[in-house]
Amino acid sequence: MSFEIKDKDLLGRIGKLRTKSGIVETPLLFPVINPSVQPVLPQRLKDVFGFEAVITNAYILKKRYQNRPVVEGLHNFLKFNGATMTDSGAYQILVYGGVEYDQKEIVAYEEGIGTDIATILDIPTGWRVTKEQAALTVAETHRRAKDFFNLKTRNDILWVGPVQGGKHLDLVAASAKEMGSLPFDIHALGSPTEVMENYRYDVLAEMILTAKKGIPIERPLHLFGAGHPSMFAIAVALGCDLFDSAAYALYAREGRYMTESGTWRLLEMDYFPCTCPRCATETPKTLLTKSVKEREIFLAEHNLWVCIAELKRIKQAIRDGRLWELTEMRCHAHPALLSALKRVVRHKDFLATFSPSIKSSGLFYFDHEGLARPEITQYTKRLLTRYTPPVNAKVLLLLPQTRNKPFHKAPEMKKIRQVLRVLGLELLDKVHVAVFCAPFGVVPLELDEVYPLSQHETALPLDKETIEYVAEQSVEYIRQMSYGGVTLLNDSKLWGSYIKFAVQKVCVEKSVCFEIVEAGQVSSRQLIDDLRVVLQKQLNGL
Amino acid sequence: MSFEIKDKDLLGRIGKLRTKSGIVETPLLFPVINPSVQPVLPQRLKDVFGFEAVITNAYILKKRYQNRPVVEGLHNFLKFNGATMTDSGAYQILVYGGVEYDQKEIVAYEEGIGTDIATILDIPTGWRVTKEQAALTVAETHRRAKDFFNLKTRNDILWVGPVQGGKHLDLVAASAKEMGSLPFDIHALGSPTEVMENYRYDVLAEMILTAKKGIPIERPLHLFGAGHPSMFAIAVALGCDLFDSAAYALYAREGRYMTESGTWRLLEMDYFPCTCPRCATETPKTLLTKSVKEREIFLAEHNLWVCIAELKRIKQAIRDGRLWELTEMRCHAHPALLSALKRVVRHKDFLATFSPSIKSSGLFYFDHEGLARPEITQYTKRLLTRYTPPVNAKVLLLLPQTRNKPFHKAPEMKKIRQVLRVLGLELLDKVHVAVFCAPFGVVPLELDEVYPLSQHETALPLDKETIEYVAEQSVEYIRQMSYGGVTLLNDSKLWGSYIKFAVQKVCVEKSVCFEIVEAGQVSSRQLIDDLRVVLQKQLNGL
Repeated sequence: MSFEIKDKDLLGRIGKLRTKSGIVETPLLFPVINPSVQPVLPQRLKDVFGFEAVITNAYILKKRYQNRPVVEGLHNFLKFNGATMTDSGAYQILVYGGVEYDQKEIVAYEEGIGTDIATILDIPTGWRVTKEQAALTVAETHRRAKDFFNLKTRNDILWVGPVQGGKHLDLVAASAKEMGSLPFDIHALGSPTEVMENYRYDVLAEMILTAKKGIPIERPLHLFGAGHPSMFAIAVALGCDLFDSAAYALYAREGRYMTESGTWRLLEMDYFPCTCPRCATETPKTLLTKSVKEREIFLAEHNLWVCIAELKRIKQAIRDGRLWELTEMRCHAHPALLSALKRVVRHKDFLATFSPSIKSSGLFYFDHEGLARPEITQYTKRLLTRYTPPVNAKVLLLLPQTRNKPFHKAPEMKKIRQVLRVLGLELLDKVHVAVFCAPFGVVPLELDEVYPLSQHETALPLDKETIEYVAEQSVEYIRQMSYGGVTLLNDSKLWGSYIKFAVQKVCVEKSVCFEIVEAGQVSSRQLIDDLRVVLQKQLNGL
Repeated sequence: MSFEIKDKDLLGRIGKLRTKSGIVETPLLFPVINPSVQPVLPQRLKDVFGFEAVITNAYILKKRYQNRPVVEGLHNFLKFNGATMTDSGAYQILVYGGVEYDQKEIVAYEEGIGTDIATILDIPTGWRVTKEQAALTVAETHRRAKDFFNLKTRNDILWVGPVQGGKHLDLVAASAKEMGSLPFDIHALGSPTEVMENYRYDVLAEMILTAKKGIPIERPLHLFGAGHPSMFAIAVALGCDLFDSAAYALYAREGRYMTESGTWRLLEMDYFPCTCPRCATETPKTLLTKSVKEREIFLAEHNLWVCIAELKRIKQAIRDGRLWELTEMRCHAHPALLSALKRVVRHKDFLATFSPSIKSSGLFYFDHEGLARPEITQYTKRLLTRYTPPVNAKVLLLLPQTRNKPFHKAPEMKKIRQVLRVLGLELLDKVHVAVFCAPFGVVPLELDEVYPLSQHETALPLDKETIEYVAEQSVEYIRQMSYGGVTLLNDSKLWGSYIKFAVQKVCVEKSVCFEIVEAGQVSSRQLIDDLRVVLQKQLNGL
């Protein structure tokens, strides 16, 4: 295996990719090298910025430099001693309708120049195409992929098999399955450029996840043309391992200044909101006194610093088990990114399958977008399929979450224990105490120290979708367990009447005795009395 | 006036504060200088990092160095040629219960050392105190404040009048009014340190806004002890102009690495997620081979770079009119920060009064937290108090928002115009077309190019609170206007049935004829037919 996974979170991972020029660490960004106009020299990208690999275009090399890169070897030609990747001209097929070389020539050229990672000459689907046209690109890409394995002569190059289908997700699924069944080292999601240009990150998220479900999970996935740091986090979270960026240079040429949360035009800036070595000693005003070329190099280098820092942030977040937090924050850089994050909940089971279930750090819950988090899916699944309440439990006493965690150590629980003690030993055994909390739903009190039930922070007040999720999960729990009665202590200030009505309804449906005590409407002493009376009544009735 | 406001957004502003040592720009962070252990020399803070001012503690100076800073002058003593601020020992009163100097001595000392900005010796309220104790601190602070004006002898120092009251908001309001009535140059929110240590940023937000409402809006507000960059954005958004940070140095001593979205322990880091000149050439691994002192200096400098960059980001955001966007993003660094942002909606009218209503850039709407935005408050207020529908308008045709903006140029509107044309000139005049859109609610089509009705992007799908807001605003609009009929084209895929039921209800209440056509259930041709029939029916009935 050329790819070894070292750490993971969500569908993101830190991996080691073994190329013939050395091992590189993923998530990895390949700056695009244009040998004829290059604002930052390739070797400088590695030595100063720390980019371990670059990408260039085999089709353009062949067209413009013909045999020279073959004779010199790609690494010497680029004057770069890291890993190299080549694209094949497929993007040019999309833009210009065709290229003058066939796949055989391109594959031979990529082998000839000795690139480390190479792409077959696939047919990109594009954005505004009918399903029929899209199906043709998928079929032709598959045909070429199969054909490619008869053309290749070297075994030391990692080959990329792109997945096509565009926004037609059933075609993406079919393409991923077909391409995934062939012995490629790496896959790529074909030309998402137009999807991104149209800010349809929601569609892109679906495309990535669909591709991801079809290809073997242990192979890295490259996202072509994704060069803006604001989207690296969500792309990695959804399973992309490799990226390439021409944007750093294109933006620089157009006077545009990247940040991890958006783009500015240099001319509109009064401050450089950045600490990079270039920005630390410059202001927009002083930069504007310099030559166009100097400005372009400044911007290109700044853009590269921003990209490499964001990748480090993502890697650190994977190590910390906090990639969701980083992703949710970044998706607040643009509504189109948040729209993409909102799609993820549809795939929450897929996320939960591959994301680790124990982490070294707690979980921050903000809004219902977080309901897609694997920790929540994993917990509810374990609770509903593997958990059984204590054998003697007859009545479920369901309490609202406390500010302090673990819940059983909160001051409020002291009073509850008083109530239970008054019931006497025999009855006490029959009461099963659980808490309903956001975002997890019902948490039996004896489990409340299991990760992450005490290791989370939630923004209050809760949003409605979160309250509804907790209500649904509580209903599902009560439906599956066989309590004879449920007593709910409702905290309407935080929860309104959602939980109350939902729990009442499932109790009626199951013919389970239901009692409710409202917190916050009577004195604390009265509340305890009420709870005792209600519990005693329920226990005696069973 | 010592303070001149250059630009503003929300309650944040870029200002020029004139001190006797020169003009400094706000929002401004004063790094705390401890003359006996200082990891970064004061002059380096200015020359390398760009901090224009520092703060130190007059009480500690007097106690430890006695007359030396008076003889040398504070600037020479600190070897710093920027602006200086001194705190007074009030924080030490909070921590130790008292200090050995009285206000007269402290004020004389602050004047004697020639600081540029000085603080009276107020009595901090603290966190865990009863309302009675809190009231005493407010009263004593007020008494000392009045007394101070008899003590002061120099007119070239800017004096800070702290507002006390702690979490007791009525006391904060009273204190702000009292202190604001005295001729201070600057105000401060007294010791919010414990509020922050307890992560009660929601309480802090209420304290800041309450103080802000009481003091003269044209005076700068200092937030004592707020030194973590993750909270600068919300603090500025709520009207804080000045901050001080000992955190950069304290964190460094404890091996902690700040970022604008949280804090890491150096020992837990595998990557430096930062571009600062220190992090660009170092890794956690290489740093750990260095001496404890070198590490501390590294961390202090990194922390300072992060702080200064965040302030630049905030200033640029104010210039761009995008401080809300930055704040909302930053508040996703910790649920306690988002809880604070969730409080802001209660003060939306106050925000709307002082925030500019026309900006150079569009508005990003993510989730219902954004309903606090001044643009929304301002629009609805203008619509409901200043707008009248066209004189002939009898029927309101209410259409769902389109993806393209301005709405009247969207492809869907072409079809609507076809329908209207079929009605004939006479009837056409009687139909008033409006769109309901998130987050603004009803937008009469003829207004749809007014800022920011076309200059916004919204994350889809909408959350429930946003849909409810749009429904409420639509109800309010219909209630106030005098249409004879309302025809609603409902898009249940995006809006569910909230808008439908809400509009129906207000129509029944007002005895206004109500018709509904459901989009997405029939062919586009059928839909147009249905709309025509319904409109004709309504118009004929009037």
